[in-house]
Amino acid sequence: MLTFIGLGLYDERSITVEGQDALREADHAFAEWYTSELIGTTVDDLEAYHGIEIEVRDRPGVEQDPEDILAAAETGDVAFLTAGDTMISTTHVDLRLRAHDRGIETRVIHGVTAQTATSSLTGLQNYRFGKATTLPFPYAHGADGLPSSVTETIDANRAANLHTVVYLDIKVDRATRPGQNDEQQYDSPYMTGDVGASLLAERYPELLGVVIARAGSPDPLVEAAPLATLAEGDFGDPLHILVIPGTLHLLEADALCALAGANREDLEVV
Amino acid sequence: MLTFIGLGLYDERSITVEGQDALREADHAFAEWYTSELIGTTVDDLEAYHGIEIEVRDRPGVEQDPEDILAAAETGDVAFLTAGDTMISTTHVDLRLRAHDRGIETRVIHGVTAQTATSSLTGLQNYRFGKATTLPFPYAHGADGLPSSVTETIDANRAANLHTVVYLDIKVDRATRPGQNDEQQYDSPYMTGDVGASLLAERYPELLGVVIARAGSPDPLVEAAPLATLAEGDFGDPLHILVIPGTLHLLEADALCALAGANREDLEVV
Repeated sequence: MLTFIGLGLYDERSITVEGQDALREADHAFAEWYTSELIGTTVDDLEAYHGIEIEVRDRPGVEQDPEDILAAAETGDVAFLTAGDTMISTTHVDLRLRAHDRGIETRVIHGVTAQTATSSLTGLQNYRFGKATTLPFPYAHGADGLPSSVTETIDANRAANLHTVVYLDIKVDRATRPGQNDEQQYDSPYMTGDVGASLLAERYPELLGVVIARAGSPDPLVEAAPLATLAEGDFGDPLHILVIPGTLHLLEADALCALAGANREDLEVV
Repeated sequence: MLTFIGLGLYDERSITVEGQDALREADHAFAEWYTSELIGTTVDDLEAYHGIEIEVRDRPGVEQDPEDILAAAETGDVAFLTAGDTMISTTHVDLRLRAHDRGIETRVIHGVTAQTATSSLTGLQNYRFGKATTLPFPYAHGADGLPSSVTETIDANRAANLHTVVYLDIKVDRATRPGQNDEQQYDSPYMTGDVGASLLAERYPELLGVVIARAGSPDPLVEAAPLATLAEGDFGDPLHILVIPGTLHLLEADALCALAGANREDLEVV
């Protein structure tokens, strides 16, 4: 049995009770932190809290060489752990399909995702979000200006009056990448809200943005302001996410004023 | 302190460990089941499992008359519980803002949502979902044919090559509504996947749909087929959700074939 368990967003207690029970009963546990990380804990703390040894794999150790994970799942109960929900993007669908092909039973125990927390903390209605996008570091993107994938998504959603979640790049494995000229100007592997806002402000300086910092932690921060203003902000520890709202319903505007410090005059209300 | 705690999708163990800890430490706990329900448990079982009395409120008891919830939160720790994530739609933002206005500290402990589980169980990539929509029972919709909110959302998403989550109507409180003529033909307050598919098949008989049943439970079911075929299906116990995919990436198509029983020839692959 191969059980994919989402650890949720922050620390060793962000997992569901069901996930915790399955993890504690597993014979082997593997984890990967290359798609995201839990900021509020360490592998040592996770191991101590749940009473199980966790083997952390890099990307090649999951995607190219999962043989021993699958072999362990053929004869015992294996837990495969990631931040958030393990299957929310297609990253680990391949591993699930490989297991399926070998007749190994698989199961998914869901975790809280950044998408959920983003809607929940901002007061922006989950029904009113369009397609999401990811803003890469310029050194990863490799070309001048904003990627068209980002601007086209924001523009199409705004034209349809929808909100856009802009995931900010994470380059946990960048130490292994060939150095590029402008990489040095970013001192964190996590793109922060102010960096994301400054990149977007080149094109949309007046547009309202919402930074969500440390979603899922005990001290999340939500701040709404024009992107050029957010670009000057400091939102503390990672992880950060940006939202570009469409026009707002009245209750959404009330929430951004009360919970995110927005100025009413900066908001476009339907 | 007023802590909004999402219970997740299925039973008393779908809550996060953090949520469980907060619930067990609360002085008072309130819950509402009118936006959704936990199919795998009862209030009695929740109370016994978490060792706390839970007062269940109907919609007027939350939205019109929350005075005693707020009063309790002024002097003690109050937990407010819902299925999924409490703040994912704006339903309870109003209660949070009322607390905020009275100087009561609020906190959100997130829960797993149907949106997360839908992407995760189908293998459809979360980035490729557009706006979501809800398919109402015809008696609730009150007009002939599909609501334009549903068809316009599906059509716009498909034109942009995006997947659509179609939430299926829940009328837990319909016993209190004035009876309408065709209400009697539905014997469950939860719209099932076959009923949802049959309503959509009037307009889109050949279109691929994916039914997700019992997301978040130990025995979820995922089935992909043309809507006219799904309309003849039986997907077992609730809750059910429908997805209308856009054209598929290869790995998404592989996942629907392996995990959802799709026929390769029914799939539109990019």
